[in-house]
Amino acid sequence: MAKVRVAAFSISLDGFGAGPRQDINNPLGVRGTEVHNWFFQTNVFEKIKGQASGGSRGVDNDMAIRSFENVGAWIMGRNMFGPVRGPWPDEEWKGWWGEEPPFHVPAFVLTHHARVPLEMMGGTTFYFVTDGIESALQQAKEAAAAKDVRIGGGVATIRQYLVAGAIDEMHLALSPVLLGEGEHLFAGIDLHQLGFKVERTVAGENAMHVLVNK
Amino acid sequence: MAKVRVAAFSISLDGFGAGPRQDINNPLGVRGTEVHNWFFQTNVFEKIKGQASGGSRGVDNDMAIRSFENVGAWIMGRNMFGPVRGPWPDEEWKGWWGEEPPFHVPAFVLTHHARVPLEMMGGTTFYFVTDGIESALQQAKEAAAAKDVRIGGGVATIRQYLVAGAIDEMHLALSPVLLGEGEHLFAGIDLHQLGFKVERTVAGENAMHVLVNK
Repeated sequence: MAKVRVAAFSISLDGFGAGPRQDINNPLGVRGTEVHNWFFQTNVFEKIKGQASGGSRGVDNDMAIRSFENVGAWIMGRNMFGPVRGPWPDEEWKGWWGEEPPFHVPAFVLTHHARVPLEMMGGTTFYFVTDGIESALQQAKEAAAAKDVRIGGGVATIRQYLVAGAIDEMHLALSPVLLGEGEHLFAGIDLHQLGFKVERTVAGENAMHVLVNK
Repeated sequence: MAKVRVAAFSISLDGFGAGPRQDINNPLGVRGTEVHNWFFQTNVFEKIKGQASGGSRGVDNDMAIRSFENVGAWIMGRNMFGPVRGPWPDEEWKGWWGEEPPFHVPAFVLTHHARVPLEMMGGTTFYFVTDGIESALQQAKEAAAAKDVRIGGGVATIRQYLVAGAIDEMHLALSPVLLGEGEHLFAGIDLHQLGFKVERTVAGENAMHVLVNK
Protein backbone atom coordinates (compact mmCIF):
# COMPACT_ATOMS: atom_id res chain seq x y z
CA MET A 1 0.00 0.00 0.00
CA ALA A 2 1.22 3.47 -0.80
CA LYS A 3 2.66 5.33 2.17
CA VAL A 4 3.34 8.86 3.23
CA ARG A 5 7.03 8.76 4.08
CA VAL A 6 9.83 10.84 5.42
CA ALA A 7 13.07 9.36 4.12
CA ALA A 8 16.78 9.98 4.57
CA PHE A 9 15.97 12.98 6.71
CA SER A 10 19.13 14.00 8.50
CA ILE A 11 19.20 15.27 12.05
CA SER A 12 21.99 16.04 14.47
CA LEU A 13 22.51 14.01 17.63
CA ASP A 14 20.82 16.79 19.55
CA GLY A 15 17.81 16.56 17.27
CA PHE A 16 18.14 19.50 14.88
CA GLY A 17 17.18 19.06 11.23
CA ALA A 18 18.52 22.44 10.20
CA GLY A 19 20.74 25.10 11.65
CA PRO A 20 19.62 28.60 12.63
CA ARG A 21 19.53 31.76 10.45
CA GLN A 22 18.70 30.22 7.07
CA ASP A 23 19.41 32.44 4.05
CA ILE A 24 20.62 32.16 0.47
CA ASN A 25 24.18 31.44 1.62
CA ASN A 26 23.02 28.99 4.28
CA PRO A 27 20.04 27.22 2.73
CA LEU A 28 20.08 24.72 5.60
CA GLY A 29 20.91 27.28 8.26
CA VAL A 30 24.31 27.86 9.83
CA ARG A 31 26.20 24.54 9.98
CA GLY A 32 23.04 22.83 8.72
CA THR A 33 24.93 21.07 5.92
CA GLU A 34 26.89 19.10 8.52
CA VAL A 35 23.94 16.82 9.23
CA HIS A 36 24.05 15.74 5.56
CA ASN A 37 27.73 14.81 5.45
CA TRP A 38 26.87 11.11 5.30
CA PHE A 39 24.74 11.72 2.19
CA PHE A 40 27.30 13.91 0.42
CA GLN A 41 29.71 10.98 0.43
CA THR A 42 27.39 8.53 -1.31
CA ASN A 43 27.25 7.42 -4.90
CA VAL A 44 23.60 8.53 -4.93
CA PHE A 45 24.71 12.10 -4.33
CA GLU A 46 27.51 11.86 -6.89
CA LYS A 47 24.98 10.67 -9.46
CA ILE A 48 22.76 13.66 -8.69
CA LYS A 49 25.78 15.84 -9.43
CA GLY A 50 26.36 13.93 -12.68
CA GLN A 51 29.31 11.82 -11.50
CA ALA A 52 27.90 8.34 -11.90
CA SER A 53 31.00 6.49 -10.77
CA GLY A 54 31.95 8.46 -7.66
CA GLY A 55 31.01 8.16 -4.02
CA SER A 56 30.62 5.37 -1.53
CA ARG A 57 28.56 2.25 -2.10
CA GLY A 58 28.10 0.97 1.44
CA VAL A 59 25.28 1.08 3.95
CA ASP A 60 24.77 4.84 3.77
CA ASN A 61 24.45 4.62 -0.01
CA ASP A 62 21.99 1.74 0.26
CA MET A 63 19.85 3.83 2.59
CA ALA A 64 20.04 6.77 0.20
CA ILE A 65 18.94 4.54 -2.69
CA ARG A 66 16.06 3.26 -0.59
CA SER A 67 14.91 6.81 0.15
CA PHE A 68 14.25 7.47 -3.56
CA GLU A 69 12.61 4.11 -4.31
CA ASN A 70 8.89 3.95 -5.01
CA VAL A 71 8.41 7.70 -4.56
CA GLY A 72 5.60 9.02 -6.77
CA ALA A 73 5.43 12.59 -5.51
CA TRP A 74 7.21 14.95 -3.13
CA ILE A 75 5.95 17.59 -0.76
CA MET A 76 8.24 20.31 0.51
CA GLY A 77 8.02 23.55 2.39
CA ARG A 78 8.81 26.75 0.61
CA ASN A 79 12.19 27.13 2.34
CA MET A 80 13.27 23.78 0.97
CA PHE A 81 12.43 25.14 -2.49
CA GLY A 82 14.20 28.45 -2.10
CA PRO A 83 15.20 31.52 -0.11
CA VAL A 84 12.52 33.81 -1.55
CA ARG A 85 10.10 35.16 1.08
CA GLY A 86 6.80 36.90 0.52
CA PRO A 87 5.22 37.21 -2.95
CA TRP A 88 7.26 35.85 -5.86
CA PRO A 89 8.95 38.87 -7.46
CA ASP A 90 9.25 36.97 -10.77
CA GLU A 91 9.59 33.42 -12.09
CA GLU A 92 13.36 33.47 -11.92
CA TRP A 93 13.94 31.26 -8.88
CA LYS A 94 13.66 27.63 -9.92
CA GLY A 95 14.80 25.80 -6.80
CA TRP A 96 18.20 25.02 -5.31
CA TRP A 97 18.93 22.19 -7.73
CA GLY A 98 19.56 23.66 -11.19
CA GLU A 99 17.80 22.72 -14.43
CA GLU A 100 17.34 19.03 -13.55
CA PRO A 101 16.25 18.55 -9.94
CA PRO A 102 16.73 15.12 -8.38
CA PHE A 103 13.02 14.41 -7.87
CA HIS A 104 11.87 13.24 -11.34
CA VAL A 105 8.22 13.28 -10.23
CA PRO A 106 5.68 15.97 -9.32
CA ALA A 107 6.82 18.04 -6.33
CA PHE A 108 4.30 20.07 -4.35
CA VAL A 109 5.64 23.23 -2.71
CA LEU A 110 3.73 24.66 0.27
CA THR A 111 3.47 28.42 -0.02
CA HIS A 112 1.13 31.32 0.68
CA HIS A 113 1.83 32.84 -2.73
CA ALA A 114 0.39 31.45 -5.94
CA ARG A 115 2.62 30.68 -8.89
CA VAL A 116 2.11 28.75 -12.12
CA PRO A 117 3.53 25.21 -12.20
CA LEU A 118 7.18 25.01 -13.12
CA GLU A 119 8.25 22.15 -15.38
CA MET A 120 11.91 21.23 -15.10
CA MET A 121 14.09 18.76 -16.95
CA GLY A 122 14.04 15.10 -15.96
CA GLY A 123 10.40 14.79 -14.96
CA THR A 124 10.19 17.16 -12.02
CA THR A 125 7.32 19.63 -12.07
CA PHE A 126 6.93 21.98 -9.13
CA TYR A 127 3.33 22.74 -8.18
CA PHE A 128 2.75 25.61 -5.79
CA VAL A 129 0.00 24.84 -3.28
CA THR A 130 -1.59 27.74 -1.45
CA ASP A 131 -4.53 26.05 0.25
CA GLY A 132 -2.77 24.14 2.99
CA ILE A 133 -1.11 20.87 3.91
CA GLU A 134 -4.23 18.70 3.53
CA SER A 135 -4.75 19.91 -0.02
CA ALA A 136 -1.08 19.37 -0.87
CA LEU A 137 -1.24 15.84 0.50
CA GLN A 138 -4.38 15.08 -1.46
CA GLN A 139 -2.84 16.36 -4.68
CA ALA A 140 0.40 14.51 -4.03
CA LYS A 141 -1.42 11.23 -3.37
CA GLU A 142 -3.32 11.59 -6.62
CA ALA A 143 -0.12 12.35 -8.51
CA ALA A 144 1.72 9.45 -6.88
CA ALA A 145 -1.09 6.99 -7.61
CA ALA A 146 0.12 3.60 -6.31
CA LYS A 147 3.46 4.96 -5.19
CA ASP A 148 4.51 6.72 -1.98
CA VAL A 149 4.41 10.39 -1.15
CA ARG A 150 7.70 11.59 0.28
CA ILE A 151 7.56 14.52 2.66
CA GLY A 152 10.91 16.06 1.85
CA GLY A 153 11.10 18.69 4.54
CA GLY A 154 12.09 20.93 6.01
CA VAL A 155 11.57 20.54 9.70
CA ALA A 156 8.46 22.76 9.93
CA THR A 157 6.76 20.86 7.12
CA ILE A 158 7.46 17.45 8.65
CA ARG A 159 6.26 18.67 12.04
CA GLN A 160 2.97 19.86 10.55
CA TYR A 161 2.32 16.51 8.86
CA LEU A 162 3.37 14.60 12.00
CA VAL A 163 0.95 16.50 14.20
CA ALA A 164 -1.77 15.99 11.58
CA GLY A 165 -1.18 12.24 11.90
CA ALA A 166 -0.48 11.97 8.18
CA ILE A 167 2.95 10.29 8.22
CA ASP A 168 3.20 6.48 8.10
CA GLU A 169 6.95 5.96 8.15
CA MET A 170 10.14 7.88 8.82
CA HIS A 171 13.71 7.05 7.96
CA LEU A 172 15.93 9.38 9.95
CA ALA A 173 19.68 9.63 9.57
CA LEU A 174 21.32 10.60 12.86
CA SER A 175 24.55 12.36 12.09
CA PRO A 176 27.40 12.48 14.61
CA VAL A 177 27.35 16.25 15.00
CA LEU A 178 25.96 18.63 17.60
CA LEU A 179 24.30 21.72 16.16
CA GLY A 180 23.29 23.16 19.53
CA GLU A 181 20.61 25.37 18.00
CA GLY A 182 18.38 25.40 14.96
CA GLU A 183 15.15 23.72 13.98
CA HIS A 184 14.38 20.79 16.28
CA LEU A 185 12.45 18.01 14.60
CA PHE A 186 10.56 16.59 17.56
CA ALA A 187 10.49 19.18 20.36
CA GLY A 188 7.02 19.14 21.87
CA ILE A 189 5.86 16.29 19.64
CA ASP A 190 5.07 12.97 21.34
CA LEU A 191 6.05 10.32 18.79
CA HIS A 192 4.97 7.51 21.10
CA GLN A 193 1.49 8.95 21.48
CA LEU A 194 1.33 9.41 17.71
CA GLY A 195 1.81 5.65 17.45
CA PHE A 196 5.37 5.47 16.19
CA LYS A 197 7.70 2.65 17.10
CA VAL A 198 11.30 1.98 16.13
CA GLU A 199 11.23 -0.73 13.50
CA ARG A 200 14.99 -1.05 13.18
CA THR A 201 18.28 0.78 13.28
CA VAL A 202 21.08 0.38 10.77
CA ALA A 203 24.61 1.56 11.44
CA GLY A 204 25.94 3.34 8.38
CA GLU A 205 29.48 4.46 7.75
CA ASN A 206 28.75 8.08 8.65
CA ALA A 207 25.26 8.10 10.18
CA MET A 208 22.93 5.89 12.15
CA HIS A 209 19.78 5.14 10.23
CA VAL A 210 16.60 4.77 12.20
CA LEU A 211 13.36 3.47 10.75
CA VAL A 212 10.22 4.27 12.65
CA ASN A 213 6.68 3.48 11.62
CA LYS A 214 3.19 3.01 12.96
CA MET B 1 44.15 14.15 33.89
CA ALA B 2 41.10 13.40 35.99
CA LYS B 3 37.82 14.21 34.25
CA VAL B 4 34.27 14.93 35.18
CA ARG B 5 32.36 12.40 33.11
CA VAL B 6 28.90 11.28 32.21
CA ALA B 7 29.13 7.64 31.16
CA ALA B 8 26.78 5.03 29.75
CA PHE B 9 23.94 7.45 30.14
CA SER B 10 21.01 6.08 28.17
CA ILE B 11 18.59 8.23 26.22
CA SER B 12 15.79 7.47 23.81
CA LEU B 13 16.02 8.42 20.15
CA ASP B 14 13.81 11.38 20.91
CA GLY B 15 16.21 12.51 23.61
CA PHE B 16 14.58 11.46 26.87
CA GLY B 17 16.74 10.13 29.70
CA ALA B 18 13.79 9.12 31.85
CA GLY B 19 10.09 8.64 31.42
CA PRO B 20 7.40 10.76 33.05
CA ARG B 21 5.72 10.23 36.45
CA GLN B 22 8.60 8.72 38.42
CA ASP B 23 7.62 6.90 41.61
CA ILE B 24 8.66 3.87 43.66
CA ASN B 25 7.20 1.50 41.06
CA ASN B 26 8.71 3.44 38.18
CA PRO B 27 12.07 4.66 39.46
CA LEU B 28 12.98 5.74 35.93
CA GLY B 29 9.52 7.04 35.06
CA VAL B 30 6.93 5.26 32.95
CA ARG B 31 8.71 3.19 30.29
CA GLY B 32 12.00 4.70 31.44
CA THR B 33 13.63 1.30 31.82
CA GLU B 34 13.37 0.77 28.06
CA VAL B 35 16.27 3.12 27.39
CA HIS B 36 18.47 0.80 29.47
CA ASN B 37 17.63 -2.42 27.65
CA TRP B 38 21.07 -2.52 26.03
CA PHE B 39 22.71 -2.42 29.49
CA PHE B 40 20.45 -5.05 31.04
CA GLN B 41 21.73 -7.55 28.48
CA THR B 42 25.41 -7.11 29.30
CA ASN B 43 27.73 -9.20 31.40
CA VAL B 44 28.48 -6.04 33.42
CA PHE B 45 24.86 -5.93 34.53
CA GLU B 46 24.76 -9.66 35.25
CA LYS B 47 27.84 -9.26 37.44
CA ILE B 48 26.12 -6.47 39.37
CA LYS B 49 23.29 -8.92 39.99
CA GLY B 50 25.81 -11.53 41.10
CA GLN B 51 25.74 -13.69 37.96
CA ALA B 52 29.35 -13.41 36.84
CA SER B 53 29.02 -15.65 33.81
CA GLY B 54 25.82 -14.35 32.24
CA GLY B 55 25.10 -11.63 29.74
CA SER B 56 26.59 -10.45 26.48
CA ARG B 57 30.27 -9.69 25.94
CA GLY B 58 30.16 -7.61 22.79
CA VAL B 59 30.41 -3.90 22.05
CA ASP B 60 27.67 -2.88 24.47
CA ASN B 61 29.41 -4.75 27.26
CA ASP B 62 32.75 -3.16 26.39
CA MET B 63 31.14 0.26 26.64
CA ALA B 64 29.57 -0.66 29.98
CA ILE B 65 32.97 -1.80 31.30
CA ARG B 66 34.52 1.45 30.11
CA SER B 67 31.88 3.47 31.97
CA PHE B 68 33.04 2.07 35.33
CA GLU B 69 36.78 2.35 34.64
CA ASN B 70 38.85 4.94 36.47
CA VAL B 71 35.85 6.28 38.40
CA GLY B 72 36.90 7.59 41.82
CA ALA B 73 33.61 9.11 42.96
CA TRP B 74 30.00 9.45 41.83
CA ILE B 75 27.55 12.28 42.02
CA MET B 76 23.83 11.65 41.72
CA GLY B 77 20.58 13.50 42.20
CA ARG B 78 18.32 12.47 45.00
CA ASN B 79 15.84 10.77 42.66
CA MET B 80 18.60 8.50 41.41
CA PHE B 81 19.17 7.51 45.04
CA GLY B 82 15.55 6.93 45.92
CA PRO B 83 11.87 7.81 45.76
CA VAL B 84 11.74 9.61 49.11
CA ARG B 85 10.73 13.28 48.81
CA GLY B 86 11.01 15.99 51.46
CA PRO B 87 12.79 15.40 54.80
CA TRP B 88 14.09 11.88 55.42
CA PRO B 89 11.47 10.19 57.65
CA ASP B 90 14.13 7.76 58.94
CA GLU B 91 17.35 6.07 57.83
CA GLU B 92 15.55 3.13 56.30
CA TRP B 93 15.94 3.93 52.59
CA LYS B 94 19.41 2.87 51.47
CA GLY B 95 19.19 3.32 47.70
CA TRP B 96 17.73 1.24 44.90
CA TRP B 97 20.62 -1.23 44.83
CA GLY B 98 20.43 -3.39 47.98
CA GLU B 99 23.22 -3.92 50.51
CA GLU B 100 26.07 -3.78 47.99
CA PRO B 101 25.58 -0.97 45.48
CA PRO B 102 27.56 -1.16 42.21
CA PHE B 103 29.61 1.99 42.85
CA HIS B 104 32.38 0.78 45.20
CA VAL B 105 33.58 4.35 45.77
CA PRO B 106 32.21 7.43 47.56
CA ALA B 107 28.89 8.56 46.07
CA PHE B 108 27.62 12.09 46.67
CA VAL B 109 23.85 12.52 46.71
CA LEU B 110 22.43 15.99 46.02
CA THR B 111 19.60 16.74 48.44
CA HIS B 112 18.05 19.59 50.37
CA HIS B 113 17.80 17.42 53.48
CA ALA B 114 20.77 16.54 55.65
CA ARG B 115 21.52 12.97 56.57
CA VAL B 116 24.52 11.21 58.07
CA PRO B 117 26.78 9.33 55.63
CA LEU B 118 25.66 5.83 54.83
CA GLU B 119 28.32 3.17 54.53
CA MET B 120 27.33 0.20 52.43
CA MET B 121 29.04 -3.09 51.60
CA GLY B 122 31.66 -3.18 48.85
CA GLY B 123 33.17 0.26 49.31
CA THR B 124 30.22 2.52 48.52
CA THR B 125 29.54 5.28 51.02
CA PHE B 126 26.70 7.67 50.30
CA TYR B 127 27.35 11.26 51.37
CA PHE B 128 24.38 13.61 51.41
CA VAL B 129 25.30 17.07 50.16
CA THR B 130 22.98 19.93 51.02
CA ASP B 131 25.02 22.93 49.92
CA GLY B 132 24.73 22.66 46.16
CA ILE B 133 26.30 21.19 43.05
CA GLU B 134 29.59 23.09 43.30
CA SER B 135 30.18 21.79 46.78
CA ALA B 136 29.30 18.24 45.74
CA LEU B 137 31.71 18.45 42.82
CA GLN B 138 34.49 19.77 45.04
CA GLN B 139 33.96 16.98 47.57
CA ALA B 140 33.76 14.37 44.82
CA LYS B 141 36.98 15.59 43.19
CA GLU B 142 38.77 15.38 46.51
CA ALA B 143 37.44 11.89 47.14
CA ALA B 144 38.34 10.77 43.61
CA ALA B 145 41.87 12.16 43.84
CA ALA B 146 43.58 11.27 40.54
CA LYS B 147 40.55 9.43 39.20
CA ASP B 148 37.44 10.69 37.42
CA VAL B 149 34.20 11.92 38.89
CA ARG B 150 31.21 10.28 37.25
CA ILE B 151 28.01 12.29 37.17
CA GLY B 152 25.55 9.42 37.35
CA GLY B 153 22.31 11.26 36.75
CA GLY B 154 19.49 11.72 36.54
CA VAL B 155 18.67 14.10 33.78
CA ALA B 156 18.18 17.16 36.02
CA THR B 157 21.55 16.62 37.68
CA ILE B 158 23.42 16.25 34.39
CA ARG B 159 21.69 19.34 33.01
CA GLN B 160 22.78 21.39 36.02
CA TYR B 161 26.41 20.35 35.65
CA LEU B 162 26.30 20.88 31.88
CA VAL B 163 25.02 24.42 32.21
CA ALA B 164 27.65 25.07 34.89
CA GLY B 165 30.30 24.06 32.34
CA ALA B 166 31.60 21.37 34.68
CA ILE B 167 31.40 18.31 32.43
CA ASP B 168 34.41 17.32 30.30
CA GLU B 169 33.12 14.20 28.55
CA MET B 170 29.88 12.35 27.94
CA HIS B 171 29.26 8.83 26.75
CA LEU B 172 25.63 8.58 25.74
CA ALA B 173 23.89 5.38 24.74
CA LEU B 174 21.13 6.07 22.23
CA SER B 175 18.51 3.37 22.56
CA PRO B 176 16.19 2.49 19.70
CA VAL B 177 13.02 3.47 21.52
CA LEU B 178 10.73 6.49 21.43
CA LEU B 179 9.53 7.63 24.85
CA GLY B 180 7.55 10.59 23.53
CA GLU B 181 7.55 12.32 26.92
CA GLY B 182 9.66 12.45 30.02
CA GLU B 183 12.86 14.19 31.03
CA HIS B 184 14.70 15.53 27.99
CA LEU B 185 18.46 15.63 28.42
CA PHE B 186 19.35 18.54 26.14
CA ALA B 187 16.23 20.65 25.54
CA GLY B 188 17.25 24.29 25.71
CA ILE B 189 20.92 23.44 26.21
CA ASP B 190 23.32 24.39 23.39
CA LEU B 191 25.99 21.68 23.45
CA HIS B 192 27.86 23.29 20.58
CA GLN B 193 28.12 26.59 22.41
CA LEU B 194 29.26 24.72 25.53
CA GLY B 195 32.18 23.49 23.44
CA PHE B 196 31.20 19.85 22.93
CA LYS B 197 32.08 17.92 19.80
CA VAL B 198 31.37 14.35 18.80
CA GLU B 199 34.59 12.42 19.27
CA ARG B 200 33.27 9.13 17.91
CA THR B 201 30.27 6.88 17.62
CA VAL B 202 30.27 3.14 18.19
CA ALA B 203 27.47 0.89 17.02
CA GLY B 204 26.60 -1.55 19.78
CA GLU B 205 24.34 -4.56 19.53
CA ASN B 206 21.40 -2.76 21.16
CA ALA B 207 22.37 0.91 21.34
CA MET B 208 24.47 3.47 19.54
CA HIS B 209 27.22 4.81 21.74
CA VAL B 210 28.20 8.41 21.26
CA LEU B 211 31.26 9.96 22.83
CA VAL B 212 31.32 13.72 23.06
CA ASN B 213 33.94 15.87 24.72
CA LYS B 214 35.38 19.36 24.78
